[in-house]
Amino acid sequence: MKRSSGPNVDLALGVTAAKGFRAGTAAVGIKKLTEKPDVGILVCDVEASAAGVFTQNRVCAAPVTVSRAHLAAGRPVRAVVANSGNANACTGDQGLADARRMARLAADRIGCPAEAVLVASTGIIGRLLPMDKIEMGLSRAWAGLAAGPEADLAFARAIMTTDTRPKQAGVRLSLGGRTVTVAGATKGVGMIAPHMATALGFLATDAAVAPALLDKVLRRAADATYNCLTVDGHTSTNDTLLVLASGLAMPGASLADGSPDAAAFEAAVMAVCDSLARQIAADAEGGTKTIEIFVTGAATCDEARRAAAAIANSPLVKCAFFGEDPNWGRIVSAAGYAGISSGPDTMRLALGDLVIFDKGRPVPADEKKLEAVMKARDIAVHLDLGAGSGEARYLTCDFGYDYIKINAEYTT
Amino acid sequence: MKRSSGPNVDLALGVTAAKGFRAGTAAVGIKKLTEKPDVGILVCDVEASAAGVFTQNRVCAAPVTVSRAHLAAGRPVRAVVANSGNANACTGDQGLADARRMARLAADRIGCPAEAVLVASTGIIGRLLPMDKIEMGLSRAWAGLAAGPEADLAFARAIMTTDTRPKQAGVRLSLGGRTVTVAGATKGVGMIAPHMATALGFLATDAAVAPALLDKVLRRAADATYNCLTVDGHTSTNDTLLVLASGLAMPGASLADGSPDAAAFEAAVMAVCDSLARQIAADAEGGTKTIEIFVTGAATCDEARRAAAAIANSPLVKCAFFGEDPNWGRIVSAAGYAGISSGPDTMRLALGDLVIFDKGRPVPADEKKLEAVMKARDIAVHLDLGAGSGEARYLTCDFGYDYIKINAEYTT
Repeated sequence: MKRSSGPNVDLALGVTAAKGFRAGTAAVGIKKLTEKPDVGILVCDVEASAAGVFTQNRVCAAPVTVSRAHLAAGRPVRAVVANSGNANACTGDQGLADARRMARLAADRIGCPAEAVLVASTGIIGRLLPMDKIEMGLSRAWAGLAAGPEADLAFARAIMTTDTRPKQAGVRLSLGGRTVTVAGATKGVGMIAPHMATALGFLATDAAVAPALLDKVLRRAADATYNCLTVDGHTSTNDTLLVLASGLAMPGASLADGSPDAAAFEAAVMAVCDSLARQIAADAEGGTKTIEIFVTGAATCDEARRAAAAIANSPLVKCAFFGEDPNWGRIVSAAGYAGISSGPDTMRLALGDLVIFDKGRPVPADEKKLEAVMKARDIAVHLDLGAGSGEARYLTCDFGYDYIKINAEYTT
Repeated sequence: MKRSSGPNVDLALGVTAAKGFRAGTAAVGIKKLTEKPDVGILVCDVEASAAGVFTQNRVCAAPVTVSRAHLAAGRPVRAVVANSGNANACTGDQGLADARRMARLAADRIGCPAEAVLVASTGIIGRLLPMDKIEMGLSRAWAGLAAGPEADLAFARAIMTTDTRPKQAGVRLSLGGRTVTVAGATKGVGMIAPHMATALGFLATDAAVAPALLDKVLRRAADATYNCLTVDGHTSTNDTLLVLASGLAMPGASLADGSPDAAAFEAAVMAVCDSLARQIAADAEGGTKTIEIFVTGAATCDEARRAAAAIANSPLVKCAFFGEDPNWGRIVSAAGYAGISSGPDTMRLALGDLVIFDKGRPVPADEKKLEAVMKARDIAVHLDLGAGSGEARYLTCDFGYDYIKINAEYTT
């Protein structure tokens, strides 16, 4: 099982790279540091079809409830309003009213129904949204709406919380002779676990895609990327991944489900989501390494996924990588408690290309080579369970002192 | 749901407090520091009935396989041999042969079948047991067999790995006018998660209990104590909790299943297991606080347990406690992703006695009182889901820098 060699991803492309999209941001002090942008708006000049994937946490934030409802009817969408610094989660009826008002404020400026605006929030849980700041931020962000690299990066920055850098990615592809763009921005980098795996992600495309197909494509892409990513195993209340499709690159046309063009479009969405998920893993709170876990030979794909998730979520495994210690017993034992039907006697484990455990027994490895594998910034773990053909891939990070620093000192 | 007010536990009682038991230990360099004891033997002067609860990890260590097999026939047991510093896990056929030989070496001295000796190991995974050291250690431990407080503590020390202190507990109770003792030792303090929840635990009693009843009692006690304890969510390969019953305090008698005496005995076993599990939580790697999580009002007990486990295992929750930060959104959101059927609108959360979230909304709490709750060494979390009568309790610790220090630097 190899990493798929999808379309080339361009990190210079962001949320306004596709035709028809403009973004604006503002810094209004919802985050503690007032100079940091914390409100962002992404507007589509025409009616866009849209799809979303949301947290599966039963304790979901007000903006998730509101955006889910707005998307449910399959109606066109004109904008997404996002803020960082406050999650608007665990805020009861007032929180719902605030999320709806956030949508209404943007809708009034655009001149569209409130249902045509999606909302997303990220930050501290359990505080009411400061609506005066949201209102001021929206007004300023609206005044600065623009397209281009600066607007892209400003939007990616406006949704950051503990992220140390903005995260965006895009793909340009040719569909029937027309250049189509898929690009987006995302933020992490704590409270990250399937399903869904990030606080916020926004994709914009100028492909013409009906909502039903867009929804299918987004779900499959999220399943293979964001939903195979864990930083700390804690599923957020606010996870939201949205895609808006303006259709402006394909006037008079629409992607047909099952067509080669639809497949190429899906590969582009997949590549963008994969890049965004990797950027989250690389910037994970307290992480110093990106660990990619490939489990093969499982009795079922579900068992492969459970084994990969258990390895990716084990604090002991993550600490070993932080310490660059090839303490592989922790990896094998994490697979062992994941609810798999096979045992150690058929397992084979390799770190990078070095096999260190095979058929229930340790394999002496070249110490120098093993040290080199463990010192790398990106490490691949290959575990074959030797029991079938189930496969899965998981992306995670190591666990360093800064994770505790960030998460013991955040909030108060 | 309150902590049960069971029999009084005496921390001065250890593995030889019950009639008929003697223990011996030796330091032979299986652990890196040669002055630290790493081999222990607990011998019963008569044939004891025995029961065990073992790890549910599919990757289980050789001594687990061997002890499970020796117990399966329900035959009498004469001794337990344990070592620290090496887990004898992921060691293939050689590991099984070594575990059997460890039993045989003790059996030869006692003059009993090898099947009458149970074995347990804890330490690094994936290294063959140094059998020359095991043999030497057994010989020395045998020569020093004794009963009493010193022997108790020496045995508790011989099974320690990253533990900072020995852990033991006992209860004396009166059954039909006879004084019966239940006492034991345990070790943690990393790779701790249900099920089973500790590397090693050994109980010895002089009650007369048939193996079938002993097994039932031990399972129920483990389920309510060790199996509600998590340090890092990583189920070990070597978890072993054993109880040996010499019967010497009840000559000519035997506890009848369902009798008041059997219930009193079970309460004693439960109290000892509860104390040992608490001692593990209090000495957890990198932990500075003991957190007890009570979930009530769940739709089912299973949901309550899942919610409590999710809270107890969340690194974000644990870091917040380490930082003494009442970031309760992390607690509520952890319950939310545990697979419960109810949502936030019926939840009520209290830290200590302070309600801070009720019916989906934050409740303003007295900041001074909240600060005092968070600064305490022991913190109770009460989450009522408001959906039924399911209850569960979980014991865990916070997550401090030392967890990473210990686990990034252990092994190599």
